[in-house]
Amino acid sequence: MSAPQSDIEKRKQISVRGIAQVENVTNVKKTFNRHLHYTLVKDRNVSTPRDYYFALAHTVKDHLTSRWIRTQQYYYERDPKRVYYLSLEYYMGRSLQNTMINLGIQGACDEAMYQLGLDIEELEELEEDAGLGNGGLGRLAACFLDSMATLGLAAYGYGIRYEYGIFAQKIVNGEQQEEPDDWLRFGNPWEKARPEYMLPVNFYGRVEDTPTGKKWVDTQVVFALPYDNPIPGYGNNVVNTLRLWSAKSPVEFNLKFFNDGDYIQAVIDRNIAENISRVLYPNDNFFEGKELRLKQEYFMVAATLQDIIRRYKSSRFGSREVVRTGFDSFPDKVAIQLNDTHPSMAVPELMRILVDVEGLDWDKAWELTKRTCAYTNHTVLPEALERWPCSMLENILPRHMQIIYHINYLFMQDVSKRYPGDMDKMRRMSLIEESGEKRVNMAHLCIVGSHAVNGVAAIHSQILKDSVFRDFYEMDPEKFQNKTNGITPRRWLLLCNPALSDIICEKIGESWVVHLEELQQLKQFAEDAGFQRAVQKAKQENKMRLAELLTKEYNVEINPSSIFDIQVKRIHEYKRQLLNCLHIITMYNRIKKNPNAHFVPRTVMIGGKVRINRIIFPAKLREFL
Amino acid sequence: MSAPQSDIEKRKQISVRGIAQVENVTNVKKTFNRHLHYTLVKDRNVSTPRDYYFALAHTVKDHLTSRWIRTQQYYYERDPKRVYYLSLEYYMGRSLQNTMINLGIQGACDEAMYQLGLDIEELEELEEDAGLGNGGLGRLAACFLDSMATLGLAAYGYGIRYEYGIFAQKIVNGEQQEEPDDWLRFGNPWEKARPEYMLPVNFYGRVEDTPTGKKWVDTQVVFALPYDNPIPGYGNNVVNTLRLWSAKSPVEFNLKFFNDGDYIQAVIDRNIAENISRVLYPNDNFFEGKELRLKQEYFMVAATLQDIIRRYKSSRFGSREVVRTGFDSFPDKVAIQLNDTHPSMAVPELMRILVDVEGLDWDKAWELTKRTCAYTNHTVLPEALERWPCSMLENILPRHMQIIYHINYLFMQDVSKRYPGDMDKMRRMSLIEESGEKRVNMAHLCIVGSHAVNGVAAIHSQILKDSVFRDFYEMDPEKFQNKTNGITPRRWLLLCNPALSDIICEKIGESWVVHLEELQQLKQFAEDAGFQRAVQKAKQENKMRLAELLTKEYNVEINPSSIFDIQVKRIHEYKRQLLNCLHIITMYNRIKKNPNAHFVPRTVMIGGKVRINRIIFPAKLREFL
Repeated sequence: MSAPQSDIEKRKQISVRGIAQVENVTNVKKTFNRHLHYTLVKDRNVSTPRDYYFALAHTVKDHLTSRWIRTQQYYYERDPKRVYYLSLEYYMGRSLQNTMINLGIQGACDEAMYQLGLDIEELEELEEDAGLGNGGLGRLAACFLDSMATLGLAAYGYGIRYEYGIFAQKIVNGEQQEEPDDWLRFGNPWEKARPEYMLPVNFYGRVEDTPTGKKWVDTQVVFALPYDNPIPGYGNNVVNTLRLWSAKSPVEFNLKFFNDGDYIQAVIDRNIAENISRVLYPNDNFFEGKELRLKQEYFMVAATLQDIIRRYKSSRFGSREVVRTGFDSFPDKVAIQLNDTHPSMAVPELMRILVDVEGLDWDKAWELTKRTCAYTNHTVLPEALERWPCSMLENILPRHMQIIYHINYLFMQDVSKRYPGDMDKMRRMSLIEESGEKRVNMAHLCIVGSHAVNGVAAIHSQILKDSVFRDFYEMDPEKFQNKTNGITPRRWLLLCNPALSDIICEKIGESWVVHLEELQQLKQFAEDAGFQRAVQKAKQENKMRLAELLTKEYNVEINPSSIFDIQVKRIHEYKRQLLNCLHIITMYNRIKKNPNAHFVPRTVMIGGKVRINRIIFPAKLREFL
Repeated sequence: MSAPQSDIEKRKQISVRGIAQVENVTNVKKTFNRHLHYTLVKDRNVSTPRDYYFALAHTVKDHLTSRWIRTQQYYYERDPKRVYYLSLEYYMGRSLQNTMINLGIQGACDEAMYQLGLDIEELEELEEDAGLGNGGLGRLAACFLDSMATLGLAAYGYGIRYEYGIFAQKIVNGEQQEEPDDWLRFGNPWEKARPEYMLPVNFYGRVEDTPTGKKWVDTQVVFALPYDNPIPGYGNNVVNTLRLWSAKSPVEFNLKFFNDGDYIQAVIDRNIAENISRVLYPNDNFFEGKELRLKQEYFMVAATLQDIIRRYKSSRFGSREVVRTGFDSFPDKVAIQLNDTHPSMAVPELMRILVDVEGLDWDKAWELTKRTCAYTNHTVLPEALERWPCSMLENILPRHMQIIYHINYLFMQDVSKRYPGDMDKMRRMSLIEESGEKRVNMAHLCIVGSHAVNGVAAIHSQILKDSVFRDFYEMDPEKFQNKTNGITPRRWLLLCNPALSDIICEKIGESWVVHLEELQQLKQFAEDAGFQRAVQKAKQENKMRLAELLTKEYNVEINPSSIFDIQVKRIHEYKRQLLNCLHIITMYNRIKKNPNAHFVPRTVMIGGKVRINRIIFPAKLREFL
């Protein structure tokens, strides 16, 4: 008989070792069958294509899981500086093919599905888009997550798990009809709910003076339930986490009602608290100023900061005890990047935690906050800048309003020391705007509370310095930077243009996928006739597929040999769809003036969603011409 | 090279064959580890006891899945008569231990958890109760499902997947405080959503006369999304299905609002439609008459009948085509049992489908409906009888109201033929009550629309014949039956009293578990001193455990050698808790009158939930004595 084992020894058997991975076609088929039967509870006689999609998605996710667990273990063990990307939007799109590519198992999965008589492309089409964004800002967030994972950075995305993403557009009688994006209807195979990490978020209440400082009391609590989404790096076994918060009503919600006897109404009203994460605001570059939106912003920030501080304090792997108590090394271990001003409440919330909860003095807390936070500005459009009314903040977040006032008070002192007597500068730079309804300029809050401010294109960053934030630039020039928006070449070339990718790989190998600058090597083949032909063929085939799609979906026939001149963006004044139209008219006039000259045929396509119910759509445009 | 395979040949590889089952301790451990890592995405360093519970539940569910699929395949192939149990309540409780017992894998799971250093009883305690019932009616439904699966009947339970089950009771200052039962918070490992079988349910609208008959038009649609729950039989490899419907807003819901521009409000208002399945009405033997409750009842009935008819039409395994078109054999293939009047709209709904949709003539449809439906009455309390106002029915279900009027018109003709001139009898037997607000007596509708009516105890069934339904009994005596309520001995003896079960098995073997009458064999041991001692020991140990629990949870010390005299039921006049109290007083007076006589010490415990905020609780009772 062997000696009795301790529970700790016994528990070492709880391990992933000895469980087969999805490494070859046979294993893919086996895991696919296991998921179809055990996860989807189906046999082939009653399986739908969607069941097959889910079985494949679970199979691919299994492949990811061990890497995900090991990556997170590694971060706990090594305790690197962590990057926290805070964004109200993540325009992720689909995950299946991207995951297979980044994990290098697309070939095995293709072959396995083929051997089972299934069409992998058909299955991929059944995945719902994770459309938790409006446009560029949300897609930037998604691309950054891919890049950071590929670079092996200990990065975390934080946002909101909207139950309804960006609306689907239907065109009825030439006009847009919005349809709710019920993207979670069939379940989301990629996410994992983490109820054990649920956190409280406070709203309303009042501020109490206590001997140990100000306390925010008598608040209404909503819980933030995290859902973790894997973010695989390309070919490096790294899997980072995108943690999205969902609002959950606390057990005590509306308990008062219960005791008044209207039990049913009280339970139904729990929805009110849970509405916070119900739907993405479909505004692109427009500030609507609705209370629910302010709640969304603070909800995400408050849950995220608690998570960040918990992770900072208990950094060592497997340890449940708090390890760090001091905050001196906070900025060395934590970077918080604010994607536009939507998460700007992170500045006063971090101050509140450090001062009111952790008991640091104001100046120390302010230094740590500034060294931790950085702010990305996305727009100079005045109608897009967030300016929350002080009255709304006072009601929903009374302590934060006080903190903002105090930040501003100290900042105004700095300004007046630097520019004595320049009242106009003070007025321009104040966090509080006094003309009309008193409002907080959230961009000013972000600039003052950050050590770095960037625009997202050279010209944009220059405009920030020259005009929009000129006063701030002059006072703190070293803060201002430019970070030109990039996109991940994994999704936007390798995945979405496989024919072109193959041609490139044939010439210069595969490492451009992670080192995009290597594409410069293609210059040497610019005059290579064979290369030119190959590129033209890939392009022409892609155009043919688009032409076919337009015929099938919209019953529109276009000339596939013409130039495809496409503008797909939000329909918006500043996107200049009208300028495009004027260009079309100009070209048309040129043809009329000189009908026998040589013109390359051109098909102009304009598409996009619109926030209000007006849309310019290709069909309408053609009528117009 | 092998010959190319057809897709059909290829798809035969999509099969459960070759995938290991959970048949021994090693396999249990392996599957448990797989689920912990791949399903819960955890390693042992960060796993919580709840993660271990879920890993075990998924392991046990895997064991069930192949049997579930095979049972359903078998029913499709053999096309037996199917029993459909329709109930607004299923008081299922926990599933883990029951499933292990019915599958005969409790020993292997026990041992596997022990070997992994885990305490299986601690994990079992983490399972949420499926409290989708108020009391006896809901538990009867659950016990019937267990029995029918154990008997190998092709039975289906149908009900509602309430997001919130029966409230949890908290006692604060001696009074009840209700807490919402957020039982799905951590997910439900047993259920499988089946969005591919989602069905529309109509409300409101109006009735149109068309050349082919009446049509119900301009309705508002809510979708019913089914969740399937496995119901394993005991030791027979049968796994039946409990299908619970959840309300889903249709994509078009509130589209009008969208076009008015209040997009956010329109999305949030989708909750209104989904409120139908939000919460169980906590009324036991009380008719509240709320519109939302009527919607719940019709929602369940309408979705279920569509499912029943779909299954009737396409009975052959794997076949997507409709097989049966005629309805002559409907009552030979379908039995619909109505658990009280809550699903009574099944009678007019089946008539509507057969007449308006399938085009049968009224008399044929009526004959089929009566032969298909049967009704269980649960109570004779007047305040519990459902009597829906005709005005409410006319608004929410206008076509059904017409059908009920027509059923009543024809029934009144029968009554008047049988009892010419007896207007009082006609008034008493009418489905429509005319005194005060016009209402439909749903019990009368059920009796008239069924071929069998039963009470749930001999005396109760006798009362139905003698008084409550006397007129109906006299007119149709053969309809009236008794079916005394039973409970499943698997859960209520084998599972919940293992010590007593062991003693019984030692004496008479194990087949009493499915043949309860064999317990009679124990009579021969009634005087056996060893047997008596064993039973007493088991009982005493159970009492000690209860006493310990009371000390731990309520800080109440009781005498474990006293008689435990326990009444746990809804606090309700007709449950006669007051009579119990009078008995206690009587006993106390006897002791005072004759303090030196021999009395067996007795501990009386009374517990229960209450619908309104008044509760008599042991602590109060003791004060009172």
